[in-house]
Amino acid sequence: MVICRSIKFECIWNRGGLMLILGVDPGTAITGYGLLEQNGNQLTARRFGVLKTSSDSSLSERLKEIYNNIIDLVIEYKPEVMAVEELFFNKNSRTALAVGQARGVIMLASAMQGVKVAEYTPLQVKMAVVGYGRAEKRQVQEMVRVLLRLDSVPKPDDAADALAIAICHAHSWRCDRLTKGGG
Amino acid sequence: MVICRSIKFECIWNRGGLMLILGVDPGTAITGYGLLEQNGNQLTARRFGVLKTSSDSSLSERLKEIYNNIIDLVIEYKPEVMAVEELFFNKNSRTALAVGQARGVIMLASAMQGVKVAEYTPLQVKMAVVGYGRAEKRQVQEMVRVLLRLDSVPKPDDAADALAIAICHAHSWRCDRLTKGGG
Repeated sequence: MVICRSIKFECIWNRGGLMLILGVDPGTAITGYGLLEQNGNQLTARRFGVLKTSSDSSLSERLKEIYNNIIDLVIEYKPEVMAVEELFFNKNSRTALAVGQARGVIMLASAMQGVKVAEYTPLQVKMAVVGYGRAEKRQVQEMVRVLLRLDSVPKPDDAADALAIAICHAHSWRCDRLTKGGG
Repeated sequence: MVICRSIKFECIWNRGGLMLILGVDPGTAITGYGLLEQNGNQLTARRFGVLKTSSDSSLSERLKEIYNNIIDLVIEYKPEVMAVEELFFNKNSRTALAVGQARGVIMLASAMQGVKVAEYTPLQVKMAVVGYGRAEKRQVQEMVRVLLRLDSVPKPDDAADALAIAICHAHSWRCDRLTKGGG
């Protein structure tokens, strides 16, 4: 854990170019998204929010709505990368299947638009944002607020979660560049 | 169970028009499909097989491949309906998430092409094909062979499963028409 903290610290001081990262927290009813601009060490939330679908619509129509909205976001902002949480196994299979369906169309949207996908485990997200793998949801959200210099924690939670995933990528990407000797 | 058998028996003798049903058994690595033609009481397998994706490709590329292949099938055959298995909860969440991702892009493909989706539980599929909810996989496959007058059981298993789901829809649809007084 100490090693990771140290890496994170080094990465924060690694100055890079401008990059736009689309963090996504998939769900059939609510999908959180957060567009994060990384300019050197500066992280700025360009836009964040949630895509809600109605339970009155059929599942395939809801998936179509999510897909079309993500495509629209990608076309409008042209992010370099999409960051999503990796498979998790601690929830029940019903939840996993529902999340999987939304996640599938979101990843398809990125492939259709030629945007790379980066996946991070919840542990990696917590490490990158809080520096502590067992951080609570509230701590993660508060750090998102601090790192992005926002007046209040982004609402709803799904939007804050999406920004946290994007921040994780911003830190990982810088670490990756540092490891490879990039500047 | 006796009631269901009786309904199934009645339905088999209910003459309807021509209908093409696309049964799909989703999976990231292997997706089974089966195009079933229903002409009155006659069921014929028009085409069946599997869509395989390489584990060398990224997940988003694999999902894109599945999506494009399903779109191609729908455009080529113009099925009236797509039939897929409903959520199941007896498998682990890792499997459920992986299946969910493939299922998501398959249902999206149907929505994009304006094809309705019908969902059936494994129990409904077994009841419709074998007439017995606890039927084994082997029994279902053998009944698929018999009902479709094939020389051998369709291979691989995923293709046979997809045809079984399509047969389930053919029977359910006929039952539905019978209930509503159609014919």
